[in-house]
Amino acid sequence: MKPLKIAVVGAGAIGAFYGSTLARAGHEVHFLLRSNSEAVAENGFFITTPKSSFHCHPVQTHSTTAEIGACDLVIIALKTTANALFPSLLPPLYEQGRTTLLTLQNGMGNVEALAAIFGAENVAAGLCSVCINRSPPCKIDAFELGVIQFAEMTGPARQRTHALAALFEASGTRCKAVDSLNKALWLKLCWNIPFNALAILGGNITTDRIIASPTLRDLAQTLMHEVAAAANANGAEITEKHIATQLATVNTLGAYKPSSLIDHLANRPLEIDSIWGEPLRRARAKNIPTPTLACIHSLLTHLNSTRTPSTAASQ
Amino acid sequence: MKPLKIAVVGAGAIGAFYGSTLARAGHEVHFLLRSNSEAVAENGFFITTPKSSFHCHPVQTHSTTAEIGACDLVIIALKTTANALFPSLLPPLYEQGRTTLLTLQNGMGNVEALAAIFGAENVAAGLCSVCINRSPPCKIDAFELGVIQFAEMTGPARQRTHALAALFEASGTRCKAVDSLNKALWLKLCWNIPFNALAILGGNITTDRIIASPTLRDLAQTLMHEVAAAANANGAEITEKHIATQLATVNTLGAYKPSSLIDHLANRPLEIDSIWGEPLRRARAKNIPTPTLACIHSLLTHLNSTRTPSTAASQ
Repeated sequence: MKPLKIAVVGAGAIGAFYGSTLARAGHEVHFLLRSNSEAVAENGFFITTPKSSFHCHPVQTHSTTAEIGACDLVIIALKTTANALFPSLLPPLYEQGRTTLLTLQNGMGNVEALAAIFGAENVAAGLCSVCINRSPPCKIDAFELGVIQFAEMTGPARQRTHALAALFEASGTRCKAVDSLNKALWLKLCWNIPFNALAILGGNITTDRIIASPTLRDLAQTLMHEVAAAANANGAEITEKHIATQLATVNTLGAYKPSSLIDHLANRPLEIDSIWGEPLRRARAKNIPTPTLACIHSLLTHLNSTRTPSTAASQ
Repeated sequence: MKPLKIAVVGAGAIGAFYGSTLARAGHEVHFLLRSNSEAVAENGFFITTPKSSFHCHPVQTHSTTAEIGACDLVIIALKTTANALFPSLLPPLYEQGRTTLLTLQNGMGNVEALAAIFGAENVAAGLCSVCINRSPPCKIDAFELGVIQFAEMTGPARQRTHALAALFEASGTRCKAVDSLNKALWLKLCWNIPFNALAILGGNITTDRIIASPTLRDLAQTLMHEVAAAANANGAEITEKHIATQLATVNTLGAYKPSSLIDHLANRPLEIDSIWGEPLRRARAKNIPTPTLACIHSLLTHLNSTRTPSTAASQ
């Protein structure tokens, strides 16, 4: 495979990890960093996974996208709380007919925000079922490396989708190209909506403790049923079997920290809108009652609003 | 008024405060204390209110109800989490034809638990709209002293109800005799269910901050509407005007700590069942949807289950 010129926008845990694996595989990877740029340029990224570790060095760091210029692939790994920056941040990276924009972000509304600027045909998504933590400036710990599901914003998987999967696969990541982003997103949210929320609202607990608590487990199931109803009304079939499988999967994860719990414990803004707000809007648009989702959305919105602003906010 | 022999069962904030005012008014008051008995016997209770302070001394303390014996009035001021103790604790205080049992406890199910032992005709309730805190062993601070509403378990206010109100009124407490315990209980819970819960789930905040948060204020209103629907189905009419009045009242209370927040901060068990569980059951028994109440009930039940046991549990 011909080396690609790749920009990684947002070098938090996800961006730093996948950018480093792609650099290790021989691609020309440029990282946009809003903080710790000098430390990373000097020391690189120190990466550990459950099976191995490696040192990504040198790392090409940049403080503006103009400095990077047009790329073959732009990987969006900002926290979704920073999506309002897209119009000012991304255009210098884009060249018509060349650039694919790939969001590896959480939740709903990200491809739409990119498509509003660059057109839906240039936008793809990778849904990451992983747990990776960054200890700024340079340490990246991958605790769980599940699969990345690649999907087009519109239409089923096509050549580009498979090429994206192959690109990440060749750099050591388990990948899958799927035919419906909508269905994959709702299915992932059927897990994230309860477990990311209850990890925080249950008193900062890992997912094994959610499942071990009869009341929280029931509450998670109630939320999953509300999400399934919203998904089904929005063209993404989620069945009882999906829910049962997802619940059973939690037991295999051990003391798993959802990304929102990691954000919460690090005093970073929660991705309220993409994980809970947008699904709630889509449920309401179809008149699907989701009172439990509304309740946890309100509680999390409040907790988030009382958060101390942090300089690590966009990572 | 002829001095009465009164037992105060549970000398937490409420029991110690009202027992002390009744002792000051000349009644023979016996306190059952499960802890700090010696310190209280030696030092008495030091009581402050927004307008005055007084020292209740000597205090007649007891470690068993058998030691106290039959009384004219038994004031139940245990946390409702200790209601299972009624059958073993209360019978020595009771004499047929003489004793009235008055619960000053929070929430629903208390009169029923007393009536199961002593018969409904001997049971009355006083609903306290107050904020009193006890700093063990001897300091009692009354921050807010609203009214106590006295009601019979069955039927409208009668001579005994007015006598109870007069007894407390003569010891300096604002009182009111009301004709429907059911309605008074639901109305009080229409306030306690949202505000006691959100003070904790909002991140240990006072009620002014609940009202200042648009999302929590909306959530409080959603809960109040669910409680009103459950109340109406259970024969207690709660109107939009009641809800508006209760919300407006919060603004007058300042930085008010609901009793459940005080319990939570002191690491004491929450009164889950009487404040949230029993109303939820009564809503479900009438097929009234209360999903938001169910959600906060689950979250609080979980938080409560992870609490470190405390020796101050029954106060």
